[in-house]
Amino acid sequence: MLNQLKNIIFCFSLSLITFSSFATDGYELWLRYKKIENEELLKQYSNLINGITTYGDSETIKIISNEIINSLKYLLGNDIRIKGTATENNSLLIGSIQNMPKDVLTNIVSLYGQINDEGYIIKRILLNHKHYIIITGKTDIGVLYGTFCFLKQLQLQKSIINIEIVDSPKLDIRVLNHWDNLDRTIERGYAGFSLWNWQKLPEYIDPRYIDYARANASVGINGTVLTSVNANALVLTPSYLNKVKSLANVFRPYGIKVYLTARFSAPIEIGGLKTADPLDNEVINWWKNKAKEIYEMIPDFGGFLVKANSEGQPGPQDYDRNHVDGANMLANALTPYGGIVMWRAFVYSEHDSTDRAKQAFTEFVPHDGEFRDNVLIQVKNGPIDFQPREPFHPMFGAMPDTPIMMEFQITQEYLGFSTHLVYLPKLFQEVLEADTYKKGKGSTVAKVIDGSLNKNKITGMAGVSNIGTDINWTGHPFLQANWYGFGRLAWDPYLDSEDIADEWLRQTFSNDIHFVEPIKKMMMKSRETVVNYMTPLGLHHIMDTDHHYGPGPWVSNLSRPEWNPVYYHRTDSLGIGFDRTPTGSNATSQYAPEVAEMFNNLNTCPENYLLWFHHLSWDYKLKNGNSLWDGIALKYQEGVDQVKNMITTWNSMENYVDELQFKEVQMLLNIQYKEAKWWRDACLLYFQQFSGKELPESVEKPSKSLEYFQSLKFPYAPGIKPKW
Amino acid sequence: MLNQLKNIIFCFSLSLITFSSFATDGYELWLRYKKIENEELLKQYSNLINGITTYGDSETIKIISNEIINSLKYLLGNDIRIKGTATENNSLLIGSIQNMPKDVLTNIVSLYGQINDEGYIIKRILLNHKHYIIITGKTDIGVLYGTFCFLKQLQLQKSIINIEIVDSPKLDIRVLNHWDNLDRTIERGYAGFSLWNWQKLPEYIDPRYIDYARANASVGINGTVLTSVNANALVLTPSYLNKVKSLANVFRPYGIKVYLTARFSAPIEIGGLKTADPLDNEVINWWKNKAKEIYEMIPDFGGFLVKANSEGQPGPQDYDRNHVDGANMLANALTPYGGIVMWRAFVYSEHDSTDRAKQAFTEFVPHDGEFRDNVLIQVKNGPIDFQPREPFHPMFGAMPDTPIMMEFQITQEYLGFSTHLVYLPKLFQEVLEADTYKKGKGSTVAKVIDGSLNKNKITGMAGVSNIGTDINWTGHPFLQANWYGFGRLAWDPYLDSEDIADEWLRQTFSNDIHFVEPIKKMMMKSRETVVNYMTPLGLHHIMDTDHHYGPGPWVSNLSRPEWNPVYYHRTDSLGIGFDRTPTGSNATSQYAPEVAEMFNNLNTCPENYLLWFHHLSWDYKLKNGNSLWDGIALKYQEGVDQVKNMITTWNSMENYVDELQFKEVQMLLNIQYKEAKWWRDACLLYFQQFSGKELPESVEKPSKSLEYFQSLKFPYAPGIKPKW
Repeated sequence: MLNQLKNIIFCFSLSLITFSSFATDGYELWLRYKKIENEELLKQYSNLINGITTYGDSETIKIISNEIINSLKYLLGNDIRIKGTATENNSLLIGSIQNMPKDVLTNIVSLYGQINDEGYIIKRILLNHKHYIIITGKTDIGVLYGTFCFLKQLQLQKSIINIEIVDSPKLDIRVLNHWDNLDRTIERGYAGFSLWNWQKLPEYIDPRYIDYARANASVGINGTVLTSVNANALVLTPSYLNKVKSLANVFRPYGIKVYLTARFSAPIEIGGLKTADPLDNEVINWWKNKAKEIYEMIPDFGGFLVKANSEGQPGPQDYDRNHVDGANMLANALTPYGGIVMWRAFVYSEHDSTDRAKQAFTEFVPHDGEFRDNVLIQVKNGPIDFQPREPFHPMFGAMPDTPIMMEFQITQEYLGFSTHLVYLPKLFQEVLEADTYKKGKGSTVAKVIDGSLNKNKITGMAGVSNIGTDINWTGHPFLQANWYGFGRLAWDPYLDSEDIADEWLRQTFSNDIHFVEPIKKMMMKSRETVVNYMTPLGLHHIMDTDHHYGPGPWVSNLSRPEWNPVYYHRTDSLGIGFDRTPTGSNATSQYAPEVAEMFNNLNTCPENYLLWFHHLSWDYKLKNGNSLWDGIALKYQEGVDQVKNMITTWNSMENYVDELQFKEVQMLLNIQYKEAKWWRDACLLYFQQFSGKELPESVEKPSKSLEYFQSLKFPYAPGIKPKW
Repeated sequence: MLNQLKNIIFCFSLSLITFSSFATDGYELWLRYKKIENEELLKQYSNLINGITTYGDSETIKIISNEIINSLKYLLGNDIRIKGTATENNSLLIGSIQNMPKDVLTNIVSLYGQINDEGYIIKRILLNHKHYIIITGKTDIGVLYGTFCFLKQLQLQKSIINIEIVDSPKLDIRVLNHWDNLDRTIERGYAGFSLWNWQKLPEYIDPRYIDYARANASVGINGTVLTSVNANALVLTPSYLNKVKSLANVFRPYGIKVYLTARFSAPIEIGGLKTADPLDNEVINWWKNKAKEIYEMIPDFGGFLVKANSEGQPGPQDYDRNHVDGANMLANALTPYGGIVMWRAFVYSEHDSTDRAKQAFTEFVPHDGEFRDNVLIQVKNGPIDFQPREPFHPMFGAMPDTPIMMEFQITQEYLGFSTHLVYLPKLFQEVLEADTYKKGKGSTVAKVIDGSLNKNKITGMAGVSNIGTDINWTGHPFLQANWYGFGRLAWDPYLDSEDIADEWLRQTFSNDIHFVEPIKKMMMKSRETVVNYMTPLGLHHIMDTDHHYGPGPWVSNLSRPEWNPVYYHRTDSLGIGFDRTPTGSNATSQYAPEVAEMFNNLNTCPENYLLWFHHLSWDYKLKNGNSLWDGIALKYQEGVDQVKNMITTWNSMENYVDELQFKEVQMLLNIQYKEAKWWRDACLLYFQQFSGKELPESVEKPSKSLEYFQSLKFPYAPGIKPKW
C-alpha cells in the first residue's frame, strides 16, 4: 500500500524556517547574540570569562547584569559552565570606578583622564597572578556603554586576550527625534505607528519601551524627543506629563533622557493666556511654572525641541519678536533645572522671495552669540530638506559663538520610505567630512558639530527616527543599520561608515566573510544608487507633493512657489538646474570663499552638485564627454541597473541568512527596483518634453506614458495626515 | 579585596525572564506548543507518533506538514527521535480521503457520512497488525482543521491511544469583520493598527499575514472581510484589488476567503456614473463588471459586506429603493461566481422617531423571503449596539425565509477597549442560548443561526475583529481568548464557553490545574463584572460620546436624540429606565408572545434586563429586597470589587506564567480597576442628582466630583478618526 505515498517526511530534516512565528523576525536588532561558531574563539571566551562580578546596586547595574548574563548564555551556548566568583582567575569585573575595589583599578588609573562621564574602559589585567577583564567608567551609564561594547567584541568574534578599549562619546546630546503624533500616527513614519501607547500609559509599560531603551543604549543614544516637531500642546498637560514620566522612568536607567517638543502657542492653547509673546510676563511665568511642574515629575527631563515660525507653526515672529527672544525665554525657564532648548533652524518664509536655500542662514547667522548657553540651534544637514543629496548647510561654521547641532533624517521621507535599501551613514559621513573652510582648510562639519572648531560648551546630533511598531522596528531589515549608524556617528562623528556597516552586518546577520563583504559593498553603494535613480547630478526636490512618494517633477500648482518641484529644477527648452552662483540667487555666497568659489566654478564644482548650483544647457558637456541630457538619462539608468545588481547580489546570499529574512529583503528589493524604474521613466519623460532629445540607446524605454505617471494618486501613502 | 563585592552573580541562576526580547510576548497565541511536561504522556505521544506521512501535494498539505513537524518538535522536545515511514507501526497518516490509500481508510468509511466538506476524522486504527493515527477529511482544508484539532489534543495533554474525533463546522460562513481603514487606522480598534500594509502590497508579504491565516485556520475561521463597514470605494479600484489578490493568495491554502465591503456609491465615486440607483442599468452593469474584474483576479473571492443607509452611509434608500433592491442587485452581480452578500441590519433612521431598538426589525422583517439566495442579513446580537448586555435581537427567528447571520463584536468598543479583561464567549453563549420561541420553546438563537430552525440553505457568523499590529495581536493577552472563542463558536454555536476557556487557557498558558481552575473562574465571571461596573440591571448606552471611552450618562447635546445616553436611561427625579413594554415604546411586541410577556411582566423580567424594558421608581423593590437605587449602587460596587478580586486571583499566579506575561496582565488589571471605579463614581454621582438619595454604606465614596468626571476629554482615544 505504501507505494502510494507521495510525501514522506522524516523528522530529522526538520526546519524551522517556514514556521514564521518561530523564525527570526528582526525584533532583536543587532543584539542577536548568536552562538559563537568559531570553536577556537568559543573556547577562548569560555576560558577568559569564568565568572562575573558586578559592583553597585543601581538599576543600571541590574540591567548590565541581566544583559551580560543572558547574552553570554546565548553567545557561549548552554554547554559552557560558568562558575566562581571574582576571586577566581578569569573573572569579568564590572562596575563604576567609585564602586570597584581600589586594588583592581590600580592598573587602569592612568586611563581615567582619557574618558568623560559617559566613557568607559575595558581592559584585561593581571593582578596577584590572576587575570581579570575589567569594564569600568566614571558612571554606571559609562559602564553600561562599556558592557555593550564588550559584548559587541564577542559578536564580532574578536580576540579578547589583550582587550583594551578606552572610549567616550564625542558629542553631549545624542537624540532621536520622533515625529510621533498623540494619535500614534507618525509624520513621515514608514515602519508602522508610534511606539508610545498613550492610551495605556502611565500604568501599562509596553515591554517594547524597555527594548527600545536597550537598543538605543547599546549604540550610545542618550535622549529621545517623544513628540513631533509639529507639536501638540496637549502633551504638556498634567495627564500627558504623567504618561511621559512613566516613559522617563523606564528610560532613565538606560541613560536616556526624555525631551518634548514645545508648541510655542501652548500658553494660549492649554494655559488660557491671550498671548504667547515671549516677552510677555505672564507667558514667561507660564513657561517657568510649566518647567517647574515638569521637573517635579521628571527630575532629569532633557528639555524642549522647538519648531517655530516654520511651515505654519506658531513662534515669536507672530509677536514681532525673533528667534533669540523665543529660544531664550524657554531656555531661561529650563536653566534652573539644567534643561536645554534645541531650536530648529529649518525656516523659510512665504514673505521671503529669495532662494529658500538661503533663508535659514539669513535669519539666524546675524544672531550668533545672542542665545543663552543652554540653547542649541538644530540645523538640517543641507539647506533644503533631507534630499538624497544636498551640499552641507552653510550655517555649519557660520555661527562660531552658538552651539550648532546636526539634524539628520533617519526616516526616509525622500529616499524611498521603508522599502528602499539605502545605507544612510554613507550620506551622514559625506556631510560630516565636508570642509566648511570657515576657519581655513580642515574646518569640517564634524569639527563644528563636536565643538572643537569653535570651543562650544555643548554639542549634539539629532536623528529623525525611522522607528515604528513594525515587528522589525524599521520596516526594512536593512534600515535598522541607519538607526544603528546614526547612534554610532552621534557617539563619534569621525567613524567610517564602512566600518559601521561591517560591525552592523556581523552582529545582525553573519560573520561569514562571503556574506559580509559583498553585502557591505552593496550597502556602501546604495546611497549613490538612490541619488542616481531619483535626483542625479544635483537635482533635488522633484518628488510628488504632500506624501513625497514617487516622482513629481511636473508639480507647479502649490500655493507657495518654493513648494513646487519646478521651482527647484527650473527646466525649460534651453536647460535645467538652479543657478545659485552670483549670476543667480548667489546662495554660494553664504559659504566660505573657498567653498563658494569651488561651487561657482564649473571646472571645480563636483558634478554631484552640478544642477544644485548651476542652470545649464541640455548640451553642456560633462566631464566624461556626454551631453548634460545624455548624462542625466544615463545616471537614471545607472541607478536602476544598480538596484538590479543589488537584487543579484542578495539572491546569492540565501545560504547565509534565515529564509524568512532572505525572502523579506528580496521582496523589498523588488519594490525598490519597480520604483527606481518609475522614477527614471517619469522624470525622463517629463524632462524630455523640454530637452526635445532622444534617450541614449542604453536607457530602457519607458513602459508607460508621462500622462500615466502624472495620473497616479496615493491618498493613503503612509506618513501623512489621513484625509477623511 | 573581594570583601567589597556587592553582587556576585553565578551563571547557574540564569533567568531569561527579565530579558524582554527573548521572553514570551504573546505573538504565538494559543499555538505555543510548549514541551509536554507530563513524562508519561510524553512517552505515549512519542511512542504513538513514530513517523509522519502526508498524502497530496497541495499548498494546504505543505502547510499541514510544516505545522505538524514543527509543532511536534516543540511539543515532544529535541530528545524525541522520530523516524521511519508509514510502513512502520504507529505512523501518523494525514491526507484527504481521495488522496489516502484505500486500505488505510477501510476502518473509517462508515464515518464519511458524519462530516461535511470542511469536516475531519481523526482515528487510531489497527491495520495488518500495525497501528496508525489517521487524520482525514473530504478536502485538504478539512484535513488542515483535523490537524489543528489533533495538535490541540496534545496541547491539552489528552491521551491519544483511543483517539476518535469526528467533527464538522455547523455554520458555513465563519468570518472576521475588520473595520480597517485604508490608512491603517482601525475604527474601534484597540490593539494597534491594521495588519494590512497596503503601501507594501502586493509585492511585500508580511510574514504576519501567514501567521494570521494560520491562527484563524486553527480555530476554523474561513473568511475575512478586510475593510471597514464604513467603506471606502477605493479598495475596489484595480490597484487595490491587486493588493487584495495578494492577500487572498496567502490566505487561500489556509481555507480563508477574502471579502470586501462594498460602498454603495462606488459607481459614482470610482465609476464615474451619475447615480448608484440599484435599479439603474448602468449601475447594475457597473457592479456586474466589477464582480467580473474581481473574480478574474481572485477566483474564490467571498463576496461583499454592506452597511447601507446607516449612520450616513449611502444606500438604496437614497434613490427611494429599499434594502431588497440594493442587496439583490449586488447579489445578482456575484451569483455567476458563487459570491455572497452580507447585508447588515444595523440601521436606524434620523427620520424615524420610534425607539431605535425597534427600527431594524421594522425595516427588514416585512421583506422576509424577498432576498436572493446568496444574501445573508447580518444582525448584531442585540437591538442597540454591542452593549455589555443586551437582550437578543428580535430579528432572530423573525425572518424564517431569510438566512440571518450573527454579528458579534470581538473588539471591545463598549467593554473597556483592550485594557479590560472580559471573556466574551460567555456573552456570545448567552445570546446563542436565548430562546426566541418563534417556533415554540427551544427556538434558540443558535438554531436560527445554524439554519436548523428554518432550514436555511446558507448560514454564518461574523465577529468584528479585535486584532491589530500589537505584538500580542489583541493588546491584552487575555483578549486573544475572544478571538479564539469566536472562532470556536462560529464552528459550533452549541459549545460551552467554559470548555472553550479551559482549552484556551491550557494551550496559551499552562495545563496546571492550580492555574487553570481559578483563572477559568475569573474569566467566566469577567463578563458579569463589566456589566456590573458599567451598565448594571439593564442600563445601556451610557458611555461617553464619539470615542465611547469611559462613562458619559450626562451626554444630551448630540444632534440625533438616539445618540444621547439620556435617551436610553431616561432618568428623572422619579426613576430610571426605558419603558419598552406596551405602556412605552412597545419594543417587546417584536418578540414572540412568550418572550414579550416575560419581558413585560416585572415578575418574570430577568433583573439583568430590568431597566432595558422598564422605567421604574428609585424606590422600586428588587428581588433581593433592596430599593432600585441601592441595587444600582451596589451593583456598581460589586463590579469594582470583582475587579479587585481578579487582581487578587492573578497576583497568586506568578509561578505559573512567564514573568513578562504576569506583569503585563497585572498592569492591565490595574487599569481595569481604576476605570471600573471611574465608571462607578461617575455614573452614581450623575444618577444621584436625580434620585437625591445617599449611597448605601458599603459603596465607596467617589474620589472626585461629578464636574471632574464630566470635564475629562480624550481627543486621542484610540479607535476613532483622528482630529486634526
